[in-house]
Amino acid sequence: MKHIAIFGYGVVGGGVTSVIEENREAIARAVGDEVDVKYILDLRDFPDSPYGGRVVHDASVIMDDPDVCLVAETMGGSHPAFELSMEALSRGKHVVTSNKEVVANFGDRLLARAGENGVSYLFEASVGGGIPVIRPFLTSLSGDTVVGISGILNGTTNFILSKMKSEKRAFSDVLKEAQVLGYAERDPSADVDGIDAKRKIMILSALATGTLPDDGDVYAESIRGIAPEDVSAAERAGRVIKLIGSFRYEKGSPAIFVCPQMVKKDDILAGVNDVYNAIRVRCSVTGDVMFYGRGAGRFPTAGAVTADIVAALSGAAAAECAPVFTKKSGSVADFDRVRFSYYIRLAGVSPSDAGEDLSRYFDKVEPVPGSPAGKAEFICGEASGKELKAFVASRDDVESVIRLAE
Amino acid sequence: MKHIAIFGYGVVGGGVTSVIEENREAIARAVGDEVDVKYILDLRDFPDSPYGGRVVHDASVIMDDPDVCLVAETMGGSHPAFELSMEALSRGKHVVTSNKEVVANFGDRLLARAGENGVSYLFEASVGGGIPVIRPFLTSLSGDTVVGISGILNGTTNFILSKMKSEKRAFSDVLKEAQVLGYAERDPSADVDGIDAKRKIMILSALATGTLPDDGDVYAESIRGIAPEDVSAAERAGRVIKLIGSFRYEKGSPAIFVCPQMVKKDDILAGVNDVYNAIRVRCSVTGDVMFYGRGAGRFPTAGAVTADIVAALSGAAAAECAPVFTKKSGSVADFDRVRFSYYIRLAGVSPSDAGEDLSRYFDKVEPVPGSPAGKAEFICGEASGKELKAFVASRDDVESVIRLAE
Repeated sequence: MKHIAIFGYGVVGGGVTSVIEENREAIARAVGDEVDVKYILDLRDFPDSPYGGRVVHDASVIMDDPDVCLVAETMGGSHPAFELSMEALSRGKHVVTSNKEVVANFGDRLLARAGENGVSYLFEASVGGGIPVIRPFLTSLSGDTVVGISGILNGTTNFILSKMKSEKRAFSDVLKEAQVLGYAERDPSADVDGIDAKRKIMILSALATGTLPDDGDVYAESIRGIAPEDVSAAERAGRVIKLIGSFRYEKGSPAIFVCPQMVKKDDILAGVNDVYNAIRVRCSVTGDVMFYGRGAGRFPTAGAVTADIVAALSGAAAAECAPVFTKKSGSVADFDRVRFSYYIRLAGVSPSDAGEDLSRYFDKVEPVPGSPAGKAEFICGEASGKELKAFVASRDDVESVIRLAE
Repeated sequence: MKHIAIFGYGVVGGGVTSVIEENREAIARAVGDEVDVKYILDLRDFPDSPYGGRVVHDASVIMDDPDVCLVAETMGGSHPAFELSMEALSRGKHVVTSNKEVVANFGDRLLARAGENGVSYLFEASVGGGIPVIRPFLTSLSGDTVVGISGILNGTTNFILSKMKSEKRAFSDVLKEAQVLGYAERDPSADVDGIDAKRKIMILSALATGTLPDDGDVYAESIRGIAPEDVSAAERAGRVIKLIGSFRYEKGSPAIFVCPQMVKKDDILAGVNDVYNAIRVRCSVTGDVMFYGRGAGRFPTAGAVTADIVAALSGAAAAECAPVFTKKSGSVADFDRVRFSYYIRLAGVSPSDAGEDLSRYFDKVEPVPGSPAGKAEFICGEASGKELKAFVASRDDVESVIRLAE
């Protein structure tokens, strides 16, 4: 019997106990032994739960119990998740987690601590919920070089952008619906301002490069500024607006950022709608590979945590090459240096007049067909963020700028 | 130093030596030892290749060499690939393969032989080329239940169908282009008649159910019959025609088949174009998960073979739960019993007249908008294959029938 503990008995933690219970036999077969949830660490009590008797409030009970060989950390937040995970790893316990915040900020130290103690630190559920992506990245693509990543990494914003398009509604209106449906929090900023997606692209970039970027070095832009006019323009330009987390090389330096991007209609990412996530990985040998599925939700995420429990306890994870992250400030290309093409909308000017002005800043200027009266819309490229800023500062009629996906 | 042999120095086998060479360091790190290609088995000689000196024509040289711990079988075809793989496994050598024909027909015996000898038989490259799908299936989804699979499993047919749609061209015309481009063989039947896709859905179904179906029990339908009129009708019905390999449960029995299907435009599979493949796996815990990428090609396929070499030699594959396939004739639901909705085109009859006739056979009959003059087109549902046949036999004006994807 393998005894494990769950830290945080919330949506995901509760899901893990259910998934383990329902798949008891398959898990025992895969692990080579039965898996038992011996403790649940939470501040609350759960007198009505069948697991109520296993709840403890003091982590040291678990840390001190040599029977517990694995901790599933599903608490969320950096603290005390980080300290408790470090402590468990130091005590020779595997740790698996769904907590992207702690991996994005402290993954380097957690992986190092796991390595020092001969145990695994696994975080499949931290990116893409139930979508298998971290493990295939580390195993199936291990003989390959990752040269780029583009991902729809946040289900809430993808739901909002999908509805804004299909139902021609405004951001604030769809956000309200997402909150009612439970897809968005009452304070939606972690999702809509790109913070959640940023943590995920930080983790994916670290897998690709071995270096975990500094949080402050990664640009993230909200979708709050996307207006119905932008959605309509994208459609007329043969594109769709998506919040994309990107990793690519810009003159040899890793460029890592999250922002709304206009994706070509025939790009496979354009067809990823509602709460679905997708991670496209560009590899030098394998070419483009994409992983798609529900990026969140109790059971998909709990399923991914459980798969990590199986990988740790079966010894499979130990046999695979564990990632090592170093952490480095300033390792990321300055976002102002990253070059894009842009959709630009100007107000109160005719397309023919504006086009000439734009040509002074951009090599290629193409009008978007079907602009509404009084607006001039263009696809302009390519320019760095710095050059774009100079253009925007040069005039007072710029109503919207959206970057084009590669 | 780990010594391996490659059986078959063709497109994929040659790719494997290149990938191993180019990623020597990363592979050594992942395996924990250097990997060396000691022998290449082929009927031909390759005097100009740097590996020319390692070519042998007699398999027993390799079988008898205890230094060789792994064979990469990239020969293709059932025989002698099957016999040689069985022999290598019996001699305690791991076998990894890109050969879907041998896995689809003899996977049960090969996996059993591997199990008896404590070695691995791995076949990631047999489905989806470079797309990681077999391993994620066995590891990340190990604590889950697979209830359905829909896959675009053949790049050649997907290229042809994509071009027929985007350029409004006929099958035979696009096939010629695919042959010139090297995407289709001179004898294209393995691809266009669904034989290749059938082998792949047989393998995927076996992963889901544990039972490898009998080749003769799995229905496969060609795309040769798809006409430009069908492509246009699909578009008017808000759908796209794709060759889909399917696995699902029909009243408790596994239904496994390959046929052209009309997929809804907003289905993620509809956006999979050109030579790309995609495998969507429906899981009871995780929901829908999709794996996407280039399904063929020298380097993607060689990359997948190399990842299997790493998994076998690092011990990771041994720590994971190896699949066991039983083989059973008659385990698959009779295709005539599987229920679908259909697109049906009738010639020389008005939609209003025909609609009434159809209602006698189908519960739901909806005309497709914009039918060309003299044709009546309908979406009809649901009926079993047997019921459909009765309908088709009842009249002589049925010009086309295409199944609708779920």
